[in-house]
Amino acid sequence: MPIEHPYLMFLGDVPDQLAAKTASGIVDWRPEWCLGQLRLPGCRADLGLPDLTIPEAKHKGARTLIVGVVNAGGVLPAHWIETIVAALEAGLDVASGLHTRLGDQPAIAQAAAAHSRQLFDVRHSGQRFATGKGTKRSGRRLLTVGTDCSVGKKYTVLALERGMRARSFDADFRATGQTGVFISGRGVAIDAVVADFISGAVEWLSPAADPTHWDLIEGQGSLFHPSFAGVSLGLLHGAQPDAFIVCHEPTRTHMRGVEHPLPSIGEVIDLTIRCGRLTNPAIRCAGIAINTQALSESDAKALLGATSAEHGLPATDPVRFGVDDLIDRLVEEFGLLPGSAPAA
Amino acid sequence: MPIEHPYLMFLGDVPDQLAAKTASGIVDWRPEWCLGQLRLPGCRADLGLPDLTIPEAKHKGARTLIVGVVNAGGVLPAHWIETIVAALEAGLDVASGLHTRLGDQPAIAQAAAAHSRQLFDVRHSGQRFATGKGTKRSGRRLLTVGTDCSVGKKYTVLALERGMRARSFDADFRATGQTGVFISGRGVAIDAVVADFISGAVEWLSPAADPTHWDLIEGQGSLFHPSFAGVSLGLLHGAQPDAFIVCHEPTRTHMRGVEHPLPSIGEVIDLTIRCGRLTNPAIRCAGIAINTQALSESDAKALLGATSAEHGLPATDPVRFGVDDLIDRLVEEFGLLPGSAPAA
Repeated sequence: MPIEHPYLMFLGDVPDQLAAKTASGIVDWRPEWCLGQLRLPGCRADLGLPDLTIPEAKHKGARTLIVGVVNAGGVLPAHWIETIVAALEAGLDVASGLHTRLGDQPAIAQAAAAHSRQLFDVRHSGQRFATGKGTKRSGRRLLTVGTDCSVGKKYTVLALERGMRARSFDADFRATGQTGVFISGRGVAIDAVVADFISGAVEWLSPAADPTHWDLIEGQGSLFHPSFAGVSLGLLHGAQPDAFIVCHEPTRTHMRGVEHPLPSIGEVIDLTIRCGRLTNPAIRCAGIAINTQALSESDAKALLGATSAEHGLPATDPVRFGVDDLIDRLVEEFGLLPGSAPAA
Repeated sequence: MPIEHPYLMFLGDVPDQLAAKTASGIVDWRPEWCLGQLRLPGCRADLGLPDLTIPEAKHKGARTLIVGVVNAGGVLPAHWIETIVAALEAGLDVASGLHTRLGDQPAIAQAAAAHSRQLFDVRHSGQRFATGKGTKRSGRRLLTVGTDCSVGKKYTVLALERGMRARSFDADFRATGQTGVFISGRGVAIDAVVADFISGAVEWLSPAADPTHWDLIEGQGSLFHPSFAGVSLGLLHGAQPDAFIVCHEPTRTHMRGVEHPLPSIGEVIDLTIRCGRLTNPAIRCAGIAINTQALSESDAKALLGATSAEHGLPATDPVRFGVDDLIDRLVEEFGLLPGSAPAA
């Protein structure tokens, strides 16, 4: 069941803008879903949206209160409960990205039941999945993979969704992390699924579709990350991508949270193809996305040019230089212009 | 906290011997822990143990009632609850391999609390884990990997534990599945862990140890199984094995539960080394274990001989021909005779 929009963004009284990073991501990618923000006294974050009370938001058509902020330890502060209960009483659903489950608070559970409202805890998966089958499904699929965690995998698929839709492709972002689920309104926080069901959850997330349809699946972790590679492999097998984009951050000196060096882009391409062939023998790399934020424009262009030449693939920074080259490559490789007959 | 032994084996009223497969496995590998069996009227399984009442078992020193049977759907039948409550009242802990959690039954939860007894649901992990770090730990580790699920990975490490201990090695079986947890008294059902913590759970399971100590870690699934490869990869990274044994069933025509063909033993060796190097650059294959049950003795020997020659590794059927060749190879490769100084 999707999270219904429009959203009222609840920021509580978080101490800085960083604590509202998830909420900012939602506003960046779905501004048309975000009617306003609701802040408690002392809040130091601002999404640049109108401040609305719950009745005002309800009157403007809001369907869900989004708790898209991070508090210390991911817990729900007791003094936020009153606002959440008021939203439920006003007829809004509530969706949260905190570790604490909304329904574990008796006052919230009671209000949701009394007013027949939905509670969404996007970090937790209430959904029951089957184990993955690995059977080929119709439709086209693209997955972002990485040399590490937090290198632009979500951003790249969202930019591709925007760019492909602008060029009349039938393309949908498929979320596998909590921010993505808010942005999509549906999805699975794949790292929170029980290990046996990783690939099965992705098969559920990206079902069989029209042959010209593209699912753009958000990658997680890295096949080379010693903490999370199992998640990345189950995600690769469940996604059975036709195409993948390697995402990379060139100034990272070691993998996030551990002491291991980053793999090369070439190693990621090789291992992704080798493992991905299990569920899609035709898997291929369609490009490279590099976060060049730390580089000057000329250095960024030089790096992208050299990377593109080395691998014979388009290389771009989706934020700085857009994703047209990647989309052109997909058209070239798969011959699937919008509305045209599929190649296979 | 380990499950305390000796055990009283509870079989309920299951309809056949197959439903008591887990219990049989415990009796096979830990006969000295299994004092007796408790069966309800109509039970069609028999472990060949004395039938004991709860007071008789308690008198003989039993510490834990083991519910090591499978019922339809893995649920706990209502008419078994009375026996479980009686065991708790008599001062036994209770450990179950059913899907239903013991503590979800109010009568069981109340009896456990009232008598300060432990409840263990080995299919579920109550333990909280850290994410894996991939940092090298002291001690030696061996992992069994497979061309598929259910090809002898647990049996092989248990046979190695028995054989290595007989030759005075300091070696411990480390369980990653529910039957193994009963046999070991501790462990983690790794397929039930939340995806983010697969490798971290294995790091917890097999902590730093004396340099001459061997942890013999039960493998799960296969890097080539489209349903479960993520579990297998996280397990490989967390185990950071020095040595691995490939387990194989030669008559299997496709992978369990899916339509995919089995990989070759050579492919499993290659991919295990390639991925395993991330957390242990010195990883190597130490042998092959083949389940030859469906073959005549001469066919079995011919297959093992050919497999050994092809890969330059010892190949055995641990059930039929023992594991001495595998242990000899470990001695050769690692030079770690019991009590000797480590090679590295």
